[in-house]
Amino acid sequence: MRTFRLTLAYDGTAFHGWQVQPRVRTVQGILEEALAKLPLAEGSRLAGAGRTDAGVHARGQVASFSAETRLPARAFAPQLNRLLPDDVRVLEAEEVDRAFHARHSARARRYRYRLMRRDDLMWRRFAWHPPRQPGADALELAVRALEGEHDFSSFQASGGPPAPPVCRVFRAGWRSWDEGVALDVIADRFLYHMVRNIIGTALEAARTADPAAAMRRVLAARDRRAASITAPAQGLSLEQVFYSNGEVS
Amino acid sequence: MRTFRLTLAYDGTAFHGWQVQPRVRTVQGILEEALAKLPLAEGSRLAGAGRTDAGVHARGQVASFSAETRLPARAFAPQLNRLLPDDVRVLEAEEVDRAFHARHSARARRYRYRLMRRDDLMWRRFAWHPPRQPGADALELAVRALEGEHDFSSFQASGGPPAPPVCRVFRAGWRSWDEGVALDVIADRFLYHMVRNIIGTALEAARTADPAAAMRRVLAARDRRAASITAPAQGLSLEQVFYSNGEVS
Repeated sequence: MRTFRLTLAYDGTAFHGWQVQPRVRTVQGILEEALAKLPLAEGSRLAGAGRTDAGVHARGQVASFSAETRLPARAFAPQLNRLLPDDVRVLEAEEVDRAFHARHSARARRYRYRLMRRDDLMWRRFAWHPPRQPGADALELAVRALEGEHDFSSFQASGGPPAPPVCRVFRAGWRSWDEGVALDVIADRFLYHMVRNIIGTALEAARTADPAAAMRRVLAARDRRAASITAPAQGLSLEQVFYSNGEVS
Repeated sequence: MRTFRLTLAYDGTAFHGWQVQPRVRTVQGILEEALAKLPLAEGSRLAGAGRTDAGVHARGQVASFSAETRLPARAFAPQLNRLLPDDVRVLEAEEVDRAFHARHSARARRYRYRLMRRDDLMWRRFAWHPPRQPGADALELAVRALEGEHDFSSFQASGGPPAPPVCRVFRAGWRSWDEGVALDVIADRFLYHMVRNIIGTALEAARTADPAAAMRRVLAARDRRAASITAPAQGLSLEQVFYSNGEVS
């Protein structure tokens, strides 16, 4: 048995998320169909580092699987890309240690959420235009208050898989992009809809006199009802997964 | 009779260009269908400032039409946007002088062509990743050589409407965007596929020792065979149309 690691990009618009579900188009499903056409025996299921929701994109998703095969690792990207539809791409493939598991071995993930300052049709698949958008400084104060290890129950939507609510946010901060600002969050784990709930809540907190205090109050409540709306899926993208024992940056 | 001017944005991906053609989806066709549902009498056809090709986008297309109606100009954008599909939007509507015609009155148009430095699935609807991409300085030298009034026959594809080949390029220059560089060209007129042929040719000229001289040689040839490939449609967008007698910038 050999184990392989794939780095993936996809446009989530036409997918019902990462995880295989009956009768709908999912990224895992499409990839497993393509893998089934390669000369692999006794293959395992494909494990993804992040279970992205319907409409959420990826530019650095990582997936792993094990199989008996004589294919060299470098053959996977070109062979799979010939079989895959236009909205998913294998960026890289490498053989890894048998102990590697894309989800369990991950130390951190980086998600990005893009806001646009005007409702531009061109970027509507990948960014959200909120009805009211506070200044970047206030938004920065709001999300910085989330850094560190906290109970994120207030930012966890119901309906997801049960999960312990404590996450460690290594970094949360805004950067500018052509059409507005984008939030980058790096954390060891993410709860269901966590980034999208952070966006909705930060937009409200940033309009208060003390955005950091407003966010800390929401955190302290440990109650989803203390937070605000869930921002729509299309602005979110899984950018990077960290595995090394080195620094997370 | 009253005359109205609409400013439009569209994602050209699913359109067979601006101009009405039988049995295919065009921007003009979709807009005229929507206009036909408003209380207008004796309406003229819709005239667009730029006849964008299949797959080409717009963020500032301008269109005009005349009609008998009591609708106030401010009613057009909300009423049309309720009727229009997701990939086309009326940004602005105003009543204008009866002599106004979106195409004939236009003094200049600005098109943008986006290149991306890596083939990123996320931006593939709106940008092109060329196989080899020269440095920004060489690209700048190449396109600057086009500024001024020239015979652009070398950059005109066959198959378009017959048109005199002399155009005045007010400005041609590169700017950076998040994923690479983008060419902005402002000219009084554009020939068929002109910007896309400029892109293909500039990418080659920029790899020579003297990019400006290489572009001037292509111009001087007045022969399409002297230029290079036509860059694909998806990178191109009509950004702005100029009408005032003031400066074009």
